[in-house]
Amino acid sequence: MRDFSRDHSALALNTATLGHNVPGAGAGWSPERTLDACAERGIGGIVFWRPEIAGRAAEIGRRARETGVKVVGLCRSPFLTGPLGFQNPSEITDDFYRAIDETAALEGDILTIVTGGVQPGTKGIPGSLSLVADRLAPVLDHARSCGVRLALEPLHPMYGGDRSCLTTTRDALDLCDALSSDILGVAIDVYHVWWDTDLPRQLRRAGPRIFGFHLCDWLAHTTDFLVDRGMMGDGVADLKGLRAAVEGAGYDGFCEVEIFSANNWWKRDPAEVLDVMTERFRTVC
Amino acid sequence: MRDFSRDHSALALNTATLGHNVPGAGAGWSPERTLDACAERGIGGIVFWRPEIAGRAAEIGRRARETGVKVVGLCRSPFLTGPLGFQNPSEITDDFYRAIDETAALEGDILTIVTGGVQPGTKGIPGSLSLVADRLAPVLDHARSCGVRLALEPLHPMYGGDRSCLTTTRDALDLCDALSSDILGVAIDVYHVWWDTDLPRQLRRAGPRIFGFHLCDWLAHTTDFLVDRGMMGDGVADLKGLRAAVEGAGYDGFCEVEIFSANNWWKRDPAEVLDVMTERFRTVC
Repeated sequence: MRDFSRDHSALALNTATLGHNVPGAGAGWSPERTLDACAERGIGGIVFWRPEIAGRAAEIGRRARETGVKVVGLCRSPFLTGPLGFQNPSEITDDFYRAIDETAALEGDILTIVTGGVQPGTKGIPGSLSLVADRLAPVLDHARSCGVRLALEPLHPMYGGDRSCLTTTRDALDLCDALSSDILGVAIDVYHVWWDTDLPRQLRRAGPRIFGFHLCDWLAHTTDFLVDRGMMGDGVADLKGLRAAVEGAGYDGFCEVEIFSANNWWKRDPAEVLDVMTERFRTVC
Repeated sequence: MRDFSRDHSALALNTATLGHNVPGAGAGWSPERTLDACAERGIGGIVFWRPEIAGRAAEIGRRARETGVKVVGLCRSPFLTGPLGFQNPSEITDDFYRAIDETAALEGDILTIVTGGVQPGTKGIPGSLSLVADRLAPVLDHARSCGVRLALEPLHPMYGGDRSCLTTTRDALDLCDALSSDILGVAIDVYHVWWDTDLPRQLRRAGPRIFGFHLCDWLAHTTDFLVDRGMMGDGVADLKGLRAAVEGAGYDGFCEVEIFSANNWWKRDPAEVLDVMTERFRTVC
């Protein structure tokens, strides 16, 4: 297991930690200012959200390289199923292509896939997972040709209805098995999987298909379905145990901090958030 | 699979559906009035919550037998771990004994166990599950001597922090295996397990250890962690598929409707709630 106590170059900022995934949230720092702040602190990587880089992906990618902060990836694919995204399959495919192109323009490695929830008019999970596979298969060649890898992120089962019919690492790996592509893997986010006692077994199964590892914490008394994630150390997830399992399976990439927190961290000065995140990464992760 | 379209005698009311699990919620019907309303509608069983039968368990049990409504069970054990219950182990054991005695006094079959969340001062799930086993083992003999069976209910992973470190049917059966008692089994509640694609396999594993089957629905857009459950048919759970799997594993007991719904069903006339629940049971479950 890597020792981060004196070297946090494997730390990456997901800009959702500063509220950049929700219009109007946070302090509204530009990508450039955010990159500079990461570089100043030795934060080695960054993950952007699509709205903040819209139309400027190549320019921001260049700026990232100048600052020495690696663009780890981009959030995220369109929803492929469920009630919240495009309802027309061709719109889904078009937007998926755009997301892949934007990731490539940033020279980012990975595009995160959030599947979307249970398909309207249907009941239960399996039918929607099957639809996810159908809608994912056609974009794989384009992603490969762009040098972009796709990371299926199982979300917490509380999002099963509307945001993600994909709720476990087991199901994510079953999808990977079914689609059998070397550019398709999984993103492991402690917020979504911390409760799953089957996780160690699934991580061993995943091996090199672990494309990302996301950090935050699960607050014992969570008060909002979407925007009440905790800073590492403030919750009940076994962060060191989870990282040990991920690294034991062979993962040696970035550890990406992604904290949606409307009433706490998004209200603070981003500089403070980055400082606390860095300190916690070195001490409790 | 049983046909309920013309016979709903297997339907049971969990009185939480009328708000009886939360002081001040619902219309405040007495146990007697609730029993009469069930009997009038041919609802075959009932599950009470402890506060509403406090000090009157034997009397209410007699009344239930007079009306012909079977007392299926009682909700629930004290939390055995986590931040929300008694913090003194001897208080937990004492209250657990009382809950067993109350179930027996009602002549109820089953006491539901909700484990409680992650033990304060610890991280992750396995340590708390181990503590659950330690705190459950000493009461098994007493339950057997009272003729009461104990049903471990895995709760949705969104309760993992504070209410239930037990979040999957798999973990519940692992606990049953570890404690190896014929009076210990599981309660399968569609609200908590609808998302779990591993469930069919676990139900086959469970076989006769399925002690209860609970109905409601998962609303695609759930707005509250505790009190926004849906009426059967209003959500995205595959209710018929879940019942087929439960019955395929051998379960032929009551189907217990348990809907926590502060802003919808608890605000309606209980008579209407019982009528809708009965009609939905016959048509969509």
